Amino acid sequence: MTEDIHAERRERAAARLRDADAAGLVCFPSRNFQYLTGFDEEPSERHFLLVVPAASDGANDERDDAAADRNAPALLVPELYETQVREGTTVADVRTWADGDDPVAAVRELLADRGLREGRLLVDDTMWATFTQDLRAAASDATWGLASEALADLRARKDETELAALREAAAAADATVRDLRELGADAVGTTERELADWIADRLAAHGGTGVSFETIVGAGPNGAKPHHGHGDREIRAGEPVVLDFGTRVDGYPSDQTRTLVFDGDPSTEYERVHETVREAQAAAIDAVEPGVTAAAVDRAAREVIEAAGYGDAFVHRTGHGVGLDVHEEPYVVAGNDRALEPGMVFSVEPGVYLDGRFGCRIEDLVVVTERGCERLNETARGWR
Amino acid sequence: MTEDIHAERRERAAARLRDADAAGLVCFPSRNFQYLTGFDEEPSERHFLLVVPAASDGANDERDDAAADRNAPALLVPELYETQVREGTTVADVRTWADGDDPVAAVRELLADRGLREGRLLVDDTMWATFTQDLRAAASDATWGLASEALADLRARKDETELAALREAAAAADATVRDLRELGADAVGTTERELADWIADRLAAHGGTGVSFETIVGAGPNGAKPHHGHGDREIRAGEPVVLDFGTRVDGYPSDQTRTLVFDGDPSTEYERVHETVREAQAAAIDAVEPGVTAAAVDRAAREVIEAAGYGDAFVHRTGHGVGLDVHEEPYVVAGNDRALEPGMVFSVEPGVYLDGRFGCRIEDLVVVTERGCERLNETARGWR
Repeated sequence: MTEDIHAERRERAAARLRDADAAGLVCFPSRNFQYLTGFDEEPSERHFLLVVPAASDGANDERDDAAADRNAPALLVPELYETQVREGTTVADVRTWADGDDPVAAVRELLADRGLREGRLLVDDTMWATFTQDLRAAASDATWGLASEALADLRARKDETELAALREAAAAADATVRDLRELGADAVGTTERELADWIADRLAAHGGTGVSFETIVGAGPNGAKPHHGHGDREIRAGEPVVLDFGTRVDGYPSDQTRTLVFDGDPSTEYERVHETVREAQAAAIDAVEPGVTAAAVDRAAREVIEAAGYGDAFVHRTGHGVGLDVHEEPYVVAGNDRALEPGMVFSVEPGVYLDGRFGCRIEDLVVVTERGCERLNETARGWR
Repeated sequence: MTEDIHAERRERAAARLRDADAAGLVCFPSRNFQYLTGFDEEPSERHFLLVVPAASDGANDERDDAAADRNAPALLVPELYETQVREGTTVADVRTWADGDDPVAAVRELLADRGLREGRLLVDDTMWATFTQDLRAAASDATWGLASEALADLRARKDETELAALREAAAAADATVRDLRELGADAVGTTERELADWIADRLAAHGGTGVSFETIVGAGPNGAKPHHGHGDREIRAGEPVVLDFGTRVDGYPSDQTRTLVFDGDPSTEYERVHETVREAQAAAIDAVEPGVTAAAVDRAAREVIEAAGYGDAFVHRTGHGVGLDVHEEPYVVAGNDRALEPGMVFSVEPGVYLDGRFGCRIEDLVVVTERGCERLNETARGWR
């Protein structure tokens, strides 16, 4: 047993690779890489790779040093990162290549040492084509799959450390929602962009690091575009504003949405839509428990919105898993028959979008528990 | 002729594809995508693709409507982005797919309509493996290459609009360097992280949007790690601090480095190293003119540093192209025999890193002119 959480995760990943009939895994600076090493590095054009061979079938071959070496994870990093990487990891085999060297030769040598120039290799789902092309050149007899085959299950069930970070990130978002509600009529006349900047400041003040995705402030008709970021439109009285934002704590993000009217009263239709979305969200959250499929949760929200006559205006899935990636497994979408399990964290965020008029979305994160689920976001869901 | 800069670029890209014997190009939300459409979208797990068929060989077949359609660029986007995308593009053929649909079927249909289920297709160098895997499934008879083959040359030579943005972004970084120098002894006692936050605020105050990469504040021995970000170490008198940062204006980044001593005097060896790096940078910049290779510029800097006895401590290439990507062609590195051309913009950033002691890097962006080059960064290069 090791006390290094990343070494433990690499061991679990190696066992999953074996179970998935994969020979090994190659990660570049990705969320998988972060999950398995702790390094939160941006991808760049330089080869920066983690190789994890599958666990061997035989028992006890840790006693055989040669076999153990052959199964050991390895890092191949640019020379200029060497000091940082060695200081920050328990991966024993750290290799480097220098600017001006041929990195593909270094990749080929590493894969050869691990017996990974053939067999089935998994790569990060987000690995850049330039690196997958080089890997294909370095291991031309291998076949290729995606890391999610072996890692998505592992990453979908959060451990206590991960849940603690997700809770703190959710709390920073919740505190910012409370700040927004206190703004009230003071928000009228500010632009979406100004409000987005203000939100970023408040998230930082509440302990978050950065924003976990581009903040959405969708005022009036802009709210009808589900992925509108923020622009120059001013907030008006009586107009619903879609506010969707998050920050990170210890690498883990928050992601929640409220649709607020900062001053005055919205239209009667908006009130009806808001109530419908609120009920849809509640119905979906009621449906969450271990064993239920992700698709069933989507269905629960969709039925409420369809019954109210807005089915065509709910143009996206009900939610997505949230972990190191803001969007990850499990996707709460029609067709996903994956059964929910305790420890999974995902968003529940039905919405209705009326082109040229307004949008309304309400989003909370939930964690699946042994008997049902628990919301990570705690603020009121009304529009006021 | 069109007045739409993105449509013009798509036409130029289509001609380059034909010249590169490629049948077509597939982009996902990437800098290529931004270059060709203006959309600055983050990649996500949803299929969001631009397809550009190669220009046809025949002249005048624009008169043939069917042939013109077959050569027209097309977008395939998630339904929830539809309104935004249609409002923001001159690409006429915008197709959508909805959550719960099979996006691979939509990709297959689009490629079939353009005759792109076979032949040689180029994909973004940064395209995620999950999408290249789906493309391989949708066009199983095609062969694959990287978009840079056709687009890197195009993107490497900046037009006036791009240069104007790069100049403004450089000016915001320069103004922030001046602010840092004015801080002087006031910086002593602040942490690297605090200084990084302060830099971000100053960049925004000078008209920039965000930071173009994680700000590097490397104090004392942390400066010896070329890609140290920023940590909890406090700035001390007499200690060199590597300051490498940038922001964006109209999508284009800045990237410059100064190594400053905020108070007191550094060691004699640091003074010698700084002078060496300054001379190396000047020599490299002197070497820049059309027709000279990128490798020769790297050599010019390296010779100065080697002659001073610090060759082993200059552990990275001399520079990289800068455009929509902070790192792009041309790479100023040994082995790159690409000849420089007017309009290319790249960094010149030699450095010396003495493990456990200090680092020193000086970086400016330059644009290649008809006769030599022009620096985009204007501030003093000394350590004081």
